[in-house]
Amino acid sequence: MVHAIKWVEDDDGAAVRIIDQTVLPTEESYLELRTVDQLVDAIARLAVRGAPALGAAGGYGVALAERQADACGWDDARLEAEIERVALARPTAVNLAWGARRVDAVRREGGGGALAEAHRLAGEDEAANRELSRLGADWLLERTGKKILRAITHCNTGALATTAWGTAYGVLKELHTRGALEMVYVDETRPLLQGTRLTSWELAQDGIPHVVEVDGAAASTILRGLVDFAVIGADRIAANGDTANKIGSVSVALAAHRAGIPFLVAAPLSTVDVTLASGDLIEIEERDQDEVLAVGGTRLSAPGVRGFNPAFDVTPHDLITGIVTEHGVVEPGVTQPAFA
Amino acid sequence: MVHAIKWVEDDDGAAVRIIDQTVLPTEESYLELRTVDQLVDAIARLAVRGAPALGAAGGYGVALAERQADACGWDDARLEAEIERVALARPTAVNLAWGARRVDAVRREGGGGALAEAHRLAGEDEAANRELSRLGADWLLERTGKKILRAITHCNTGALATTAWGTAYGVLKELHTRGALEMVYVDETRPLLQGTRLTSWELAQDGIPHVVEVDGAAASTILRGLVDFAVIGADRIAANGDTANKIGSVSVALAAHRAGIPFLVAAPLSTVDVTLASGDLIEIEERDQDEVLAVGGTRLSAPGVRGFNPAFDVTPHDLITGIVTEHGVVEPGVTQPAFA
Repeated sequence: MVHAIKWVEDDDGAAVRIIDQTVLPTEESYLELRTVDQLVDAIARLAVRGAPALGAAGGYGVALAERQADACGWDDARLEAEIERVALARPTAVNLAWGARRVDAVRREGGGGALAEAHRLAGEDEAANRELSRLGADWLLERTGKKILRAITHCNTGALATTAWGTAYGVLKELHTRGALEMVYVDETRPLLQGTRLTSWELAQDGIPHVVEVDGAAASTILRGLVDFAVIGADRIAANGDTANKIGSVSVALAAHRAGIPFLVAAPLSTVDVTLASGDLIEIEERDQDEVLAVGGTRLSAPGVRGFNPAFDVTPHDLITGIVTEHGVVEPGVTQPAFA
Repeated sequence: MVHAIKWVEDDDGAAVRIIDQTVLPTEESYLELRTVDQLVDAIARLAVRGAPALGAAGGYGVALAERQADACGWDDARLEAEIERVALARPTAVNLAWGARRVDAVRREGGGGALAEAHRLAGEDEAANRELSRLGADWLLERTGKKILRAITHCNTGALATTAWGTAYGVLKELHTRGALEMVYVDETRPLLQGTRLTSWELAQDGIPHVVEVDGAAASTILRGLVDFAVIGADRIAANGDTANKIGSVSVALAAHRAGIPFLVAAPLSTVDVTLASGDLIEIEERDQDEVLAVGGTRLSAPGVRGFNPAFDVTPHDLITGIVTEHGVVEPGVTQPAFA
């Protein structure tokens, strides 16, 4: 199984080892990030991405910063500032700051437990993913009353987006393992094409039948009755169930709502941010306009044209049929979720 | 003003002259199509595209086939078969077959009136576009009760998609001329990026402020309150108002419906196909999967991955606030439209 992120130690010292997701599937190349600068750059460029994987990146980032502080003689203030840079390298995924802060709290206690805590966090993420995948698959089979399901998904939520197994992707994998998955429609997920490049690569490796479609096709695929449910991951979930996820997710939700098929959000509990009452309060990262105007390095627009590039959207909770975490399924369109 | 399609005669004989829309905006290059084969190929490759422009292509195609029949000694059966190839070169836009059949009816009367009829058809399209643009602008200003509007549009419906002026684009241009248009959000329109390549090129030439966004951003742009209305063109409109248009259009409609902003379809009456009771009966063209899997000539998916590439979707009439033709605005969500 591919690992999006892993802690390694060798003769050159410690490093956060990631698979470079910007060049997949053309190249399977690994990067060893040995400094905070390198880690922050990799996060900003989306070489490592996906909310749960970013949780692990935040955790290992603290351990990495601690090593670098030792090597370079940083004082406490500098170390804390560098840890904060890791925590805030991207604004929308709550897991990144959550992972960094959790491991940093252990570091502050002294006793050198930061790395062990980061490993624990990563291990818990895998266990949570496997559990929520089982619970999500159970819920979908019961809710649809069907034995074989056809799915649509958006962006990438597999092993590449997590420490292992996947979230929304994990639900698909669980259904496949049970012989209950017939076909997956994969949104290509512009601008960075995580669906085309990453999800279809993982599905092919797992032998799961699928087709890739443009994001604009998602609504009609749903309205034409080609799928039985939609499943996506999440970058941040507010207390009322409003969910921030990759731009384009709310289109899938609107169509699923009209078609009356389940729209399931699958994410570990670490993605829930109970400090935010609703999705209106979630900060939406706006990325470089060249991601929209150029594709594969080629600028396709006329000179001078401007792009608008919000990386996420917020799906209102009343459009979400279920949110599955490792603790079970809540139905935020029916009752105020009690996440626990 | 750019002309998407024009009849020319020179020392080499007659030709349908088109601007090659597959290479815009990088190159402004014209093709002279002198045979039915060349015309059918240009239509299939989308070198000429847009429902009203295809109406003119169908009309001029009959005149071109007639010239070629004279030059090559085709008998009537061959000529009729060649005209049928033009009429059916793409299945979804009703205007193509409509234009070919209208001009062919005049050809069959004898008397050599086919070319004049094709010119008449093209002239009527421009007049219809200007009239529906005025009517659409009036309706939007009255309906929103605002003096300055922000718009979202999908695909390309400007001079490039028509004989002149444009349909949905014509409404935007009319609002701009009246000083009533603040900003246009342009969906890039995957897979062939007509928004990025064509609409933004036309908007820049007309000096209209705009930004380009990925198709997945349309719903959140609408739900966040960044626009006051949505306007699209149409490839075929059924008798009940169900509208086939570029894939992704129904996502815009779903979001506009939820946000409570007007969703306007702008098209000449020739786009209405009263022989179809509803959109379920509209044939949806499925195009080559490589349009999805490759971008700008580069294949981005892993080897062996399959693409799903429906070129159009159908927006149900109850999601459409208004349909404007040169005869006025109908509101198909309220009453069964009486197109006339």
